[in-house]
Amino acid sequence: MSFNQPLGGNEMPRFAGPATMMRLPSQETAEGLDACFVGIPLDIGTSNRSGTRQGPRYIRIESCMLRPYNMGTGAAPFDSLQVADIGDVPLNTFDLKKSVVIIEEAYDGILAHDCRPLTLGGDHTLVYPILKAMAKKHGPVALIHVDAHADINDEMFGEKIAHGTPFRRALEDGCIAADKVFQIGLRGTGYSPEDFDWSRQQGFTVVPAEDCWMKSLTPLMAEIRAKIGDHPTYLSYDIDSLDPAFAPGTGTVEIGGLTIWQALEIIRGCRGLDIVGGDLVEVSPPYDPSGNTALVGANLLYEMLCILPGVRYPDEAPGNK
Amino acid sequence: MSFNQPLGGNEMPRFAGPATMMRLPSQETAEGLDACFVGIPLDIGTSNRSGTRQGPRYIRIESCMLRPYNMGTGAAPFDSLQVADIGDVPLNTFDLKKSVVIIEEAYDGILAHDCRPLTLGGDHTLVYPILKAMAKKHGPVALIHVDAHADINDEMFGEKIAHGTPFRRALEDGCIAADKVFQIGLRGTGYSPEDFDWSRQQGFTVVPAEDCWMKSLTPLMAEIRAKIGDHPTYLSYDIDSLDPAFAPGTGTVEIGGLTIWQALEIIRGCRGLDIVGGDLVEVSPPYDPSGNTALVGANLLYEMLCILPGVRYPDEAPGNK
Amino acid sequence: MSFNQPLGGNEMPRFAGPATMMRLPSQETAEGLDACFVGIPLDIGTSNRSGTRQGPRYIRIESCMLRPYNMGTGAAPFDSLQVADIGDVPLNTFDLKKSVVIIEEAYDGILAHDCRPLTLGGDHTLVYPILKAMAKKHGPVALIHVDAHADINDEMFGEKIAHGTPFRRALEDGCIAADKVFQIGLRGTGYSPEDFDWSRQQGFTVVPAEDCWMKSLTPLMAEIRAKIGDHPTYLSYDIDSLDPAFAPGTGTVEIGGLTIWQALEIIRGCRGLDIVGGDLVEVSPPYDPSGNTALVGANLLYEMLCILPGVRYPDEAPGNK
Amino acid sequence: MSFNQPLGGNEMPRFAGPATMMRLPSQETAEGLDACFVGIPLDIGTSNRSGTRQGPRYIRIESCMLRPYNMGTGAAPFDSLQVADIGDVPLNTFDLKKSVVIIEEAYDGILAHDCRPLTLGGDHTLVYPILKAMAKKHGPVALIHVDAHADINDEMFGEKIAHGTPFRRALEDGCIAADKVFQIGLRGTGYSPEDFDWSRQQGFTVVPAEDCWMKSLTPLMAEIRAKIGDHPTYLSYDIDSLDPAFAPGTGTVEIGGLTIWQALEIIRGCRGLDIVGGDLVEVSPPYDPSGNTALVGANLLYEMLCILPGVRYPDEAPGNK
Amino acid sequence: MSFNQPLGGNEMPRFAGPATMMRLPSQETAEGLDACFVGIPLDIGTSNRSGTRQGPRYIRIESCMLRPYNMGTGAAPFDSLQVADIGDVPLNTFDLKKSVVIIEEAYDGILAHDCRPLTLGGDHTLVYPILKAMAKKHGPVALIHVDAHADINDEMFGEKIAHGTPFRRALEDGCIAADKVFQIGLRGTGYSPEDFDWSRQQGFTVVPAEDCWMKSLTPLMAEIRAKIGDHPTYLSYDIDSLDPAFAPGTGTVEIGGLTIWQALEIIRGCRGLDIVGGDLVEVSPPYDPSGNTALVGANLLYEMLCILPGVRYPDEAPGNK
Amino acid sequence: MSFNQPLGGNEMPRFAGPATMMRLPSQETAEGLDACFVGIPLDIGTSNRSGTRQGPRYIRIESCMLRPYNMGTGAAPFDSLQVADIGDVPLNTFDLKKSVVIIEEAYDGILAHDCRPLTLGGDHTLVYPILKAMAKKHGPVALIHVDAHADINDEMFGEKIAHGTPFRRALEDGCIAADKVFQIGLRGTGYSPEDFDWSRQQGFTVVPAEDCWMKSLTPLMAEIRAKIGDHPTYLSYDIDSLDPAFAPGTGTVEIGGLTIWQALEIIRGCRGLDIVGGDLVEVSPPYDPSGNTALVGANLLYEMLCILPGVRYPDEAPGNK
Repeated sequence: MSFNQPLGGNEMPRFAGPATMMRLPSQETAEGLDACFVGIPLDIGTSNRSGTRQGPRYIRIESCMLRPYNMGTGAAPFDSLQVADIGDVPLNTFDLKKSVVIIEEAYDGILAHDCRPLTLGGDHTLVYPILKAMAKKHGPVALIHVDAHADINDEMFGEKIAHGTPFRRALEDGCIAADKVFQIGLRGTGYSPEDFDWSRQQGFTVVPAEDCWMKSLTPLMAEIRAKIGDHPTYLSYDIDSLDPAFAPGTGTVEIGGLTIWQALEIIRGCRGLDIVGGDLVEVSPPYDPSGNTALVGANLLYEMLCILPGVRYPDEAPGNK
Repeated sequence: MSFNQPLGGNEMPRFAGPATMMRLPSQETAEGLDACFVGIPLDIGTSNRSGTRQGPRYIRIESCMLRPYNMGTGAAPFDSLQVADIGDVPLNTFDLKKSVVIIEEAYDGILAHDCRPLTLGGDHTLVYPILKAMAKKHGPVALIHVDAHADINDEMFGEKIAHGTPFRRALEDGCIAADKVFQIGLRGTGYSPEDFDWSRQQGFTVVPAEDCWMKSLTPLMAEIRAKIGDHPTYLSYDIDSLDPAFAPGTGTVEIGGLTIWQALEIIRGCRGLDIVGGDLVEVSPPYDPSGNTALVGANLLYEMLCILPGVRYPDEAPGNK
Repeated sequence: MSFNQPLGGNEMPRFAGPATMMRLPSQETAEGLDACFVGIPLDIGTSNRSGTRQGPRYIRIESCMLRPYNMGTGAAPFDSLQVADIGDVPLNTFDLKKSVVIIEEAYDGILAHDCRPLTLGGDHTLVYPILKAMAKKHGPVALIHVDAHADINDEMFGEKIAHGTPFRRALEDGCIAADKVFQIGLRGTGYSPEDFDWSRQQGFTVVPAEDCWMKSLTPLMAEIRAKIGDHPTYLSYDIDSLDPAFAPGTGTVEIGGLTIWQALEIIRGCRGLDIVGGDLVEVSPPYDPSGNTALVGANLLYEMLCILPGVRYPDEAPGNK
Repeated sequence: MSFNQPLGGNEMPRFAGPATMMRLPSQETAEGLDACFVGIPLDIGTSNRSGTRQGPRYIRIESCMLRPYNMGTGAAPFDSLQVADIGDVPLNTFDLKKSVVIIEEAYDGILAHDCRPLTLGGDHTLVYPILKAMAKKHGPVALIHVDAHADINDEMFGEKIAHGTPFRRALEDGCIAADKVFQIGLRGTGYSPEDFDWSRQQGFTVVPAEDCWMKSLTPLMAEIRAKIGDHPTYLSYDIDSLDPAFAPGTGTVEIGGLTIWQALEIIRGCRGLDIVGGDLVEVSPPYDPSGNTALVGANLLYEMLCILPGVRYPDEAPGNK
Repeated sequence: MSFNQPLGGNEMPRFAGPATMMRLPSQETAEGLDACFVGIPLDIGTSNRSGTRQGPRYIRIESCMLRPYNMGTGAAPFDSLQVADIGDVPLNTFDLKKSVVIIEEAYDGILAHDCRPLTLGGDHTLVYPILKAMAKKHGPVALIHVDAHADINDEMFGEKIAHGTPFRRALEDGCIAADKVFQIGLRGTGYSPEDFDWSRQQGFTVVPAEDCWMKSLTPLMAEIRAKIGDHPTYLSYDIDSLDPAFAPGTGTVEIGGLTIWQALEIIRGCRGLDIVGGDLVEVSPPYDPSGNTALVGANLLYEMLCILPGVRYPDEAPGNK
Repeated sequence: MSFNQPLGGNEMPRFAGPATMMRLPSQETAEGLDACFVGIPLDIGTSNRSGTRQGPRYIRIESCMLRPYNMGTGAAPFDSLQVADIGDVPLNTFDLKKSVVIIEEAYDGILAHDCRPLTLGGDHTLVYPILKAMAKKHGPVALIHVDAHADINDEMFGEKIAHGTPFRRALEDGCIAADKVFQIGLRGTGYSPEDFDWSRQQGFTVVPAEDCWMKSLTPLMAEIRAKIGDHPTYLSYDIDSLDPAFAPGTGTVEIGGLTIWQALEIIRGCRGLDIVGGDLVEVSPPYDPSGNTALVGANLLYEMLCILPGVRYPDEAPGNK
């Protein structure tokens, strides 16, 4: 069998060709795919700056530089997985609650094909319906959640559905296994000093940003892998977990965040887990004049692809030998 | 009685001081005011680029240059009207339909004080609840609607409430007097060649952009004034009526639009009408790097203030004598 | 037969879906098409600011707002023509002379299908190989060339191929019919007072920008149509013909240019001619922070589509009746 | 004698070479020059947005596209005038009053060489010391002042020296001939309806922007030339006279301004006058992301050069014949 | 007693409401306040890029995300301190020396109320008059000065007052206790190799950036606290102390600076000192297109508030337990 | 003998004066110089985003802040070296292969004067002709190559000359001594897992970015110095070696890169080597809205000057004592 390959720079200049993720072939459904890239152009769940509706479009554009092999880890995802870009979920951009339903149905469809979706966000509200679909297939999943914010509010402005509430909703609905939830990078200001306590009370592991400063997160990831074992695991990556120096183009910015090297350690540290899906959310192109935040997002999604089960590593760490 | 005055540049540098509209005093309600500036930071009704939630904030910032007297027309609005900035309507940014209710209630409150509101938008969805409040007080109002788009869709993506539907809703609800509705500047592409026919069938007067090219609109405004007479009239000004050369920072851009000189002719041409309120919508600051679209919006709102009933003109056209 | 339609905003939000021109279906060749959109991501022929290699990508993105019907003219291009986006020409971005050959071959292929290509540029060098392909099929074509510059240098920096030389090359190679060449919008500074004389000596009609100021160009277009008659005609539109107020994002900016209303008059004034192809060149996205220059380009390409032979006008000027 | 020539694009790419005005040779003084370009990097006289200190630098950069001959008018300034860039005046950027003295001394030096200075601003405060130097040499000069603002305040924040006061100071000091002062493009808002009356009371001719809308200014310039005759005349051009569509990058923006075609008519309409100097002020690069406002400034300064006494016109209107 | 609280996101969307610091109530004087935020919109003391006059305005705007509790440290500043935004100091923007006097008088007024001011700059010149006011109340204060530059020039361009001289002036005037002055983050290029020696000769402790690279500054802060003891201490924080990766929007950029994590360690490390006031200077919004430098400034000012004497810490490091 | 000095900020404001590197004197050739700054405005060798043609111009502009002495290291380059800016190489911007020849000839000329050139790029293609000139004078040179990419492709799009091939070409031509080549910072994605193996097979030392994360590179530089000894050494610094947090404005961005502190360690760690020339490439101003990437480039070029043989260090690490 031959696998889809990203369009190469010697066939078409990188600044041209189809504006799909990594210039991969596109198809309408997930049929026949081991993994897919899918966009959710959502920003009506955001509480501060908007613009994440443009996230999928610009992540795809800036993914044009990505070549097939990972020089840092030796991963060769396109040697053993069938991957395509299946386009965007057709949201109702005027009604957040209806959009959440549309997303859940779309992911039911993707999962029916035994495909692992990697999602280009969009605001973080989208993870709630994804987790609902995941739980229907896998039962409550383990969760690695990298973010500046816990996103566990009960309500925002009286609403149950918003980009600050998805993980409370997901727990209430039995979508996540509380003792296998890891929230990394939390920080900033809160409505009460107990803002992160609800997470801990549910059994989540909270790793505040301050605990990450100026050190490698590789040991943390080893611990997390040990605790999760072979449980199906979802990886939700909010770009605002990064310090704004590394990801300026987002809507609810908090200073003192993770570095890009830590982000790579986290995702690469997920290798060996049964990652059933992942997302990269909250890229807001209007606040990203150089395009580099979208580019960071595209790279992190590629790194997620590289640690999916079944990816071959023909040559460990080829860049590093 | 003494009237509120904008904070002057000889008391506080223009780039400083309170970030209210024209650096006017702020107050919480419309009590005691002849006219007020009020913000509606809405963008969840937009169908293309978002960002209009930041409109009120940046219109206020760029209004800091405005001095009290209109050199082009001689208007002296602060000599005879009590005006203040009453802040923003506290929208539910996660639910468009609820926000529409919140807006209507807020304007019921403003109108209870016999105050004429000038609204800093925000996307055009906001005009529907404003017109509902207006009709409760005034009956169906005359409408001067300046826009690239007719905003008379029955539905968008199956929704009745969105920034492309308000005037159909307003007519259905008896908020506007169809034979006294004037839509100026319409253009662009449509879903069918009949897109503007619905307006005409209701009795609206449609003035496409092509009919405005390269000529003065002063004669048109004379006609409109004659047709409206002393009927209570609402003025809804969408910044995208202007050609993008004059107002780049908006979300649903159409080329071939009105000029800024025509915009001034239109608003100044409303003098003599019983303008009961007005709005300036669809300024999207993330697409306005120089700030000048917000500045245009601030100026047009000031020009609206200048043509409200009761404004003194101590010296006609002082700049022009 | 059913014709391809642009993906509508009620099926997929406008900021999502495939990043093809007008969100039309894409296909690899021009087979079966009456007209096609094709990108040429060229900027190594530019003499001042670069960046036009990104032109096709951003023109496509900003075309997402375009609906099928032209409200200004009544054109219904998708009612009678089969149209698709056939992607980009795979240039050799390191060698301009080889790229020119690649382009010519690509257009030979398109024209073999009797398809009328509308090209998303890219710098103006690209028109030379297109005209070579055109002439092989049609003989020397009539040319309507809208531009700030005559692009008739013999050499630039000693080179025969560059973005300032294509029309001299095209004439030398017998691609254009000199007495049916119209250059509109020329202006600026030159290397000698005779810079435009070469054009006139060949029999071209030169219409400097100064002759266009503050007037309608509809009469000029009537004259041009009369002179061209039913001769096959190519339309080459350089975005820098527009004054930079209307099209800031380009590389060789000249002040005092055409207005957007004149641009629409010119293209709409081509209706009735046997337009065999057209291009929109020199959009440079890095100098277009709002995206509006790309949006202007997308609209002008749509207007070109609307005046191709065979387009139905079910309702003349529906916006204007 | 051979004259300095701008460095041509066939000798050095336009985006390279010395960053002098038009890539002309530079020299330290005005000795031997008929005309010079000189920068005054001043912004501590501005009352709203700053940034004009960067004006000279960015005007020079964007002047790199200018070729020697004026295709619109036939002017050949480098065929008969010796011109160079003499660099910047070394301001004291911490003290406005001292900077004004430094400027005056610098212009005394330039005028001692019988050189006509064309100044790259810088905020408008700079015209006061220039006019003082002019009057010492020529007596009270005629003045053509193109601007959105009259700049005739008595004081700003209690200060006599600021960018809103220079023409009152200049009149008080006998630098300008009141009956030969023409202020074109005034508009906006004022501190009293009488704001422009002071000008009229002195005998200035005030031409508000509203009187310029949608018409050619060529007749106005004929009148002005008739009134001035052969009196030594200074031309002060504030970029904010232009509508912000044409010149977004400035600090005290007023809507409803002049067009670029009118700007060209005004400057070209000065041909025949004894222009003894000119300036282009208030370009603020931080508010000019595309660079085009600086480019407009560079072009207008070039047009000023073209109408200096002694410029040859070997071929009238070569573009237009 | 009840304390002022920041307006919450569940009462008014974060992108709306009053544009005060943290959306706190505003009042005209410091009466009754334990601490205040105050703006000094100064940029006429800058030697390179201007724009800091816009600093207070944009810091306030980007402070809208800040919630009351510090999740990193457990600080609850609004549980025990009365805080408000008292607006901007009405500078004379045309005269730096007069502005310095105005600032000093304004701070005399603030300190008369026993209020601790936290200043939103503005260029660094402003610290000199603040320190003069501080010394009148407290005697020579200890100083923690975080900056890329020592700001101890005797003169700049012959001037005693500029943004590179304030700490020399302050020492000369007896405002600071030399043996309790700590300058952290100094680096870059100098006029002589002895540029930092003057500081050391006075008894200041100089900590160059190179000594901070790749390590925690918590130990340094412990040393500093030990040396200062309970002496009244002023904290002056120049945003350019940060590497430009973390704070791009400033005027005199030096590479190789501090990290944001170190910035937080420094300010949090001031807890326990008798901080009598602080400032955050040199944010230049025109060079900050994403707004994130202003946002960093807003956060650092909030962190300063959190370490003022009297702030309650109900729950130490709630994020970190 | 007296040496050229950068124009100081007390003689001319930093935002003014000649736009040469560090505001040094300019001259046409390298005659009499120990070192020179020279620009190569090349971007037609780039494979992704263009814009590096503007690199030299903007690096010079942002170099205006640089003072003569290095406070971090004590270097006093202008005390013992004669340095000037010799302008730009007059490239043929329409033909990459011809430009490569022009560059080689230009550097032959520079080296004929025994001058050490420090090059302002420009895309990385330029290093191939420079190395050819170097080898003619010095034989195969040692090479310290700091970059995200190995730039050792055999071909790109079938071309031997492009910005991804120079070091393979240089080795083939005997310009570099393979056992003395050090490639630092390599990372990202590749066309095969063996992409970096070619380098190793030639004997190059490859130091991938992952091996640099979160540690000092001072030990690495000691090793490199030991291996190179007194061999003539060229230093090629691609700005994209830095993580995009530190250098956003470049064309082929890879995440997970070096820090600015490491960049300084690398260059300062070259002190003691016989550095015969150096370059700073791939700054792309259109993607650098704040100007800070150009500023980083200017600083790194200055640091290169500081470690050239013959530079005096009158006071070791004056900032750090």
